[in-house]
Amino acid sequence: MLLGSNYPSSVLRDRTLETILHERRQRLAQLVDFPVILWSGRSKSRNFPANKYPFRPSSHFLYFAGLPLENAAIRLESGRLHLFYDDPDPSGALWHGEQPKRHQIASTIGADAAFPLSELPAQAAGAATIPVQNDDVRSLQAGVLGRSLSPLDNLQGIDRQLVRAIVQVRLTHDAGALVELRHAAAVTVEAHKAGMAATPTANLEAEVRGAMEGVILAHNMSCAYNSIVTVHGEVLHNEQYHHAINADDLILADVGAEAPSGWAADVTRTWPAKGTFSPSQRAIYEVVLAAHDRCIEAVKPGVEYRHIHLLAAQVMAEGLVELGILRGRPEDLVEADAHALFFPHGIGHLLGLDVHDMEDLGDYAGYEKGRARSRRFGLGFLRLHRPLKPSMLVTIEPGFYQVPGILNDAGNRQTYREMVNWQRLGDFADVRGIRIEDDVLVTPDGAEVLTAALPTQAGAIEDLVRD
Amino acid sequence: MLLGSNYPSSVLRDRTLETILHERRQRLAQLVDFPVILWSGRSKSRNFPANKYPFRPSSHFLYFAGLPLENAAIRLESGRLHLFYDDPDPSGALWHGEQPKRHQIASTIGADAAFPLSELPAQAAGAATIPVQNDDVRSLQAGVLGRSLSPLDNLQGIDRQLVRAIVQVRLTHDAGALVELRHAAAVTVEAHKAGMAATPTANLEAEVRGAMEGVILAHNMSCAYNSIVTVHGEVLHNEQYHHAINADDLILADVGAEAPSGWAADVTRTWPAKGTFSPSQRAIYEVVLAAHDRCIEAVKPGVEYRHIHLLAAQVMAEGLVELGILRGRPEDLVEADAHALFFPHGIGHLLGLDVHDMEDLGDYAGYEKGRARSRRFGLGFLRLHRPLKPSMLVTIEPGFYQVPGILNDAGNRQTYREMVNWQRLGDFADVRGIRIEDDVLVTPDGAEVLTAALPTQAGAIEDLVRD
Repeated sequence: MLLGSNYPSSVLRDRTLETILHERRQRLAQLVDFPVILWSGRSKSRNFPANKYPFRPSSHFLYFAGLPLENAAIRLESGRLHLFYDDPDPSGALWHGEQPKRHQIASTIGADAAFPLSELPAQAAGAATIPVQNDDVRSLQAGVLGRSLSPLDNLQGIDRQLVRAIVQVRLTHDAGALVELRHAAAVTVEAHKAGMAATPTANLEAEVRGAMEGVILAHNMSCAYNSIVTVHGEVLHNEQYHHAINADDLILADVGAEAPSGWAADVTRTWPAKGTFSPSQRAIYEVVLAAHDRCIEAVKPGVEYRHIHLLAAQVMAEGLVELGILRGRPEDLVEADAHALFFPHGIGHLLGLDVHDMEDLGDYAGYEKGRARSRRFGLGFLRLHRPLKPSMLVTIEPGFYQVPGILNDAGNRQTYREMVNWQRLGDFADVRGIRIEDDVLVTPDGAEVLTAALPTQAGAIEDLVRD
Repeated sequence: MLLGSNYPSSVLRDRTLETILHERRQRLAQLVDFPVILWSGRSKSRNFPANKYPFRPSSHFLYFAGLPLENAAIRLESGRLHLFYDDPDPSGALWHGEQPKRHQIASTIGADAAFPLSELPAQAAGAATIPVQNDDVRSLQAGVLGRSLSPLDNLQGIDRQLVRAIVQVRLTHDAGALVELRHAAAVTVEAHKAGMAATPTANLEAEVRGAMEGVILAHNMSCAYNSIVTVHGEVLHNEQYHHAINADDLILADVGAEAPSGWAADVTRTWPAKGTFSPSQRAIYEVVLAAHDRCIEAVKPGVEYRHIHLLAAQVMAEGLVELGILRGRPEDLVEADAHALFFPHGIGHLLGLDVHDMEDLGDYAGYEKGRARSRRFGLGFLRLHRPLKPSMLVTIEPGFYQVPGILNDAGNRQTYREMVNWQRLGDFADVRGIRIEDDVLVTPDGAEVLTAALPTQAGAIEDLVRD
């Protein structure tokens, strides 16, 4: 049954879902004085109508409704919850089993009232919303509200006010969310360990991926995003798994579980195919790890996330100077974005119900009001630019990559001709990409690494691969 | 690289993709005298724009274009192939690696010419098409063609003629397709063996699923459909995996791999959780297996698939009479649809690039021209109603289920009060659902079971679970 299966019993045992959702609604009610309607969306067909992608509701709906209901809507006003959901067609029981009815769901989530979907238009006047990802449901939303909807990253009027309010509510995580986030993190740790253990006997990247995702599925979770499991870590969003694994390759695996409730983990480790880093691989690994460790040490309330990004850049620059790859004062190199030749992305992002939490809203969540993306090569990909607050969850994920498109670019070669020792760089040709990523919760006096059970030390990683 | 990865080398070694596609175009050209434009579609977002579902192109595109290109179109006329595809944005190389360019793809698939997408409208006059699954791409199709498109299962004019032609071409499989179908079948066999082996130590259905899908992923394949791995086999499309596995449960697993080229397998086995069928489970299993075996023996060119369905019904009725569950002459019981109380679905369907091949076209593929679905309880779910032809691939999948919604229905209780020995049925309460499904190729003089490497005999199944 949906009710039992799709929201973990741990949450229902410790704090009822009803209580968690009640508190979330109250927080929202303090920020908006208009009604809000949120839609869950509908499943999408793959190659024919009955062959669907696994359904994933809108995270905004999921946050306030708690259950992954398909084709449902909720109306929130002054802390009250109305559920709009059609009772399942009895003829569907043959194919899908007995499904919970509207009144059962309403009771589980603590709805104040429940209606069929046909009654939604009558309660839609003056309501704000956030458009979902499907075009067809978006048209439905506009129809019910009787007005057009602006693009998600540039909403207007009360919809924009709603975005600001939801960002404020979802930016920090409550106890109910943290139970789920910890669970997703724990399963992700197991998946990475399985991937390391499967590597020495694997011939293809796909075999390592199969071992990792098999663990996630075995825990009745799904992947929060398309896994990256590759010997070509220099391709940042590599979603191909067909390459052969050679003895001197590094495997970069960026794989994270999503709990049935929608809460996500996002973890990257990089390990040597045969269980031993070469000296050049280990040298770079230590530089990335130093950046990772120093950044996590710096996480605490009040610190600007951008500062943490720049700290990573500084530590990376220091390490690369020490290895003879960069030349000059680390501060000057960072100022000139020389570190970004090898670390061209941001140090991380928000994590929650979305792996890039609330990225459907553009930069509303990631960027403090009044701030905008930098045009600097080394800062433009920064996804989060806010001061840290207790109960925010962020990733810390420094990396080193040799991306041909960056390193062979004539302009870069010219700009950085003095700052990079290109000949020395050749000694590190067996390092295509290294990233180390953990999920870090801001606590009142520092940080807690939710994924700390997965080692980061080079020696410990080697042991896990060789076990 | 896409070219190397997404179309298996085996095909490219034995018969080049170019040759295979050339022959497919010629077959189509013999059936239509107007130009045809087929779109691949676009990936769909999950919870935010950058978090996509894995891309699956339209099967009609894939059949004639051979590669899973996103946001591409092909124009076919008189056996000539024009490719419309935009060269990848160079700035994407950082994130996605170097992607093959239009001219490379055109060469691989043997296109006669290649253009950017912007040139498609100029070549669209008078072309037929088949609408894809995404609404947004469907609007694009209509825009390029300058006309509206009817629903997929009721296309008009040249689009309907195209449907008839494509059905004729895709209804039987060429050598290039068979290489891929055999590969998907072989990997699926391994997945089922892994699921059986994982069962005795599994506590949850999800653990068995993880073992099975892990094998599919390890072979760099995906699932052709959402897996069914359940102790509640009586729920025909059960897509939940959270139930505990008890010692006396049967596991019903309906899991199939899809090759990177899109070709699918579709296999079901049912096995005892602890490796031993109870006497009641084994008795029903033997009835289902007898139906499975007799149906496969009956597969040969010229035979009506509906006859095979009715043969399954007859064998099931005979077996259930012998067990004392049904009462009367088997012929009369089938005539009265009494078998359908326990076997409420069709004996199978077409299999190819779609797991229900060409089901996006409604019944155009499944039903011979002039035939329509029966209203009979025992025949209405039959997905295929054609005479068999060499190189058609079908599933054979008889099953026995105790569906509460059917067996507790007051009307059924009344209609079948004399035909069912309800008390005797109680002796088989530990059989909720059993299905045995194989992929069967029609050969010139009979049939070949592509999934024959996976045993069906009860004893052999028990051995695989206990190994």
